[in-house]
Amino acid sequence: MTRFDTATAVTPTAEGRYAADLDPGYLIGKAMNGGYLMAVMQRAALAASPHPHAVSSSFHFLRPAGPGPAEVEATVLKSGRTVTTVRLDLRQGDTLAVTGTIATGTMDGAAQPEYTVAPPAVPPIGECRRYDPRIAARAASSGEPTEEQYAQATKDVADFTGRVAQYYSEDTWRRFRGADPEPVPELLGHVHLAEEDGDPVPADTALFLPLAVDALPPVVTVFGTWRWAPTVELTWHMRAVPEPGPLVFRSRADVVSDGWFDETVDLWDVKGRLVAQSRQLARGGR
Amino acid sequence: MTRFDTATAVTPTAEGRYAADLDPGYLIGKAMNGGYLMAVMQRAALAASPHPHAVSSSFHFLRPAGPGPAEVEATVLKSGRTVTTVRLDLRQGDTLAVTGTIATGTMDGAAQPEYTVAPPAVPPIGECRRYDPRIAARAASSGEPTEEQYAQATKDVADFTGRVAQYYSEDTWRRFRGADPEPVPELLGHVHLAEEDGDPVPADTALFLPLAVDALPPVVTVFGTWRWAPTVELTWHMRAVPEPGPLVFRSRADVVSDGWFDETVDLWDVKGRLVAQSRQLARGGR
Repeated sequence: MTRFDTATAVTPTAEGRYAADLDPGYLIGKAMNGGYLMAVMQRAALAASPHPHAVSSSFHFLRPAGPGPAEVEATVLKSGRTVTTVRLDLRQGDTLAVTGTIATGTMDGAAQPEYTVAPPAVPPIGECRRYDPRIAARAASSGEPTEEQYAQATKDVADFTGRVAQYYSEDTWRRFRGADPEPVPELLGHVHLAEEDGDPVPADTALFLPLAVDALPPVVTVFGTWRWAPTVELTWHMRAVPEPGPLVFRSRADVVSDGWFDETVDLWDVKGRLVAQSRQLARGGR
Repeated sequence: MTRFDTATAVTPTAEGRYAADLDPGYLIGKAMNGGYLMAVMQRAALAASPHPHAVSSSFHFLRPAGPGPAEVEATVLKSGRTVTTVRLDLRQGDTLAVTGTIATGTMDGAAQPEYTVAPPAVPPIGECRRYDPRIAARAASSGEPTEEQYAQATKDVADFTGRVAQYYSEDTWRRFRGADPEPVPELLGHVHLAEEDGDPVPADTALFLPLAVDALPPVVTVFGTWRWAPTVELTWHMRAVPEPGPLVFRSRADVVSDGWFDETVDLWDVKGRLVAQSRQLARGGR
């Protein structure tokens, strides 16, 4: 049992209601990471459904959530042999923080794709750089960050990046550091549960996917100063049952305009299969 | 006023409730086209919101809807200065057919993107082929379709393709006809409201976007025999206010596996701006 498994657990309290205790280890600054919240809500959806996999999940993030008690209300909208669809509302007190809808189903772990795109070329994890929260301090400053900026950035994301280990290719790392004069908004690397969480593999490999698709710094970070980038909506699809092991990620944006940007994050397992594809729309004011 | 404007209109009947009359011209076989349903639900969301644009919209399709009366229930989940989020349920009688959540906002029609991908190279509309419903008959048959197959296919989609005019590049057309030995699931062309609908441009160009992202035949059609491909979930984001005129589309799939496929449809306006990006997950059993 990893800390992740424990931290995303939900307990049924009444028909269609589940209690959760949001773990401060998954905070980004003062707000719970969205991927962590999706992982908690997924647990409630699977508890309310006869199917084991969250095949298609869409979430609208309404207000920030903080650590501590939360309630997830799960309403089955359709119960079918192939797909059961569950609406989910995550509340803290009277505040609705996140609403989501998850279509659950049963995926065949041995399925061979009839068609698939090739995975991106990403250097082995040993040749990548583990994300250092101090990079956020560099991004937040126009030049060399002050001691205070270092301290704040470390305080904001160190716990989280200690939970979800992120490794970046050298190209990506250079973009993060602002050393790319015309940066392309594409990040490549590997992501897995940190050893500090007890084990790099959760009890059910698919449960980690929603956290992984929203664990990375906003892709617009490559354009310079750090921007507060709240997700408005995120949808992700599970495309295969992941093999145990780190996941390769590619994060990219199509358009940054008018205070909005999209971020598409795809994940491949150690066998090179696309296991999750996500897209979010977020605010990204300078 | 185009037929599309009339056909997607909603009338308030009570607090948060809107009546719609689903137009049989937007049927695909016996089920209303999903893009048309999204366009109707969008009208209710905008009526319930102070903002004019559906910036981020996610829908789960639970059961098919037919022509005739329907009710849309719109619940404002969050009302903010920048974003107002509305939950939408479309029902016929007691049957919940589609549930959706739309984040509305106000987009600046004159905004210049800080970053954008380039539009795809698509031949001018005059060098493309207008979609002919008989192509569905060819796809449904392993060889040359029978008269009955022609008649059924024409009956199933002729009205709809007369409402939403679709033009395909020669490459795409060849794939549709099964003449590509190793087809790539990518479709390129143009789409606009048909002249039969009164005018190729709706009163508000953005209202057409949800119909356009789900108006094309399933991208898996390129793999051979026509497959009934019900959408389970579709999310689309509006990225710019479209100029009046036909839209360029690119539809593609990343993975076809285990009875599921994804379809990403992007739309560009006549000025080459990405105005909408969508992704759906659908069932695609052979």
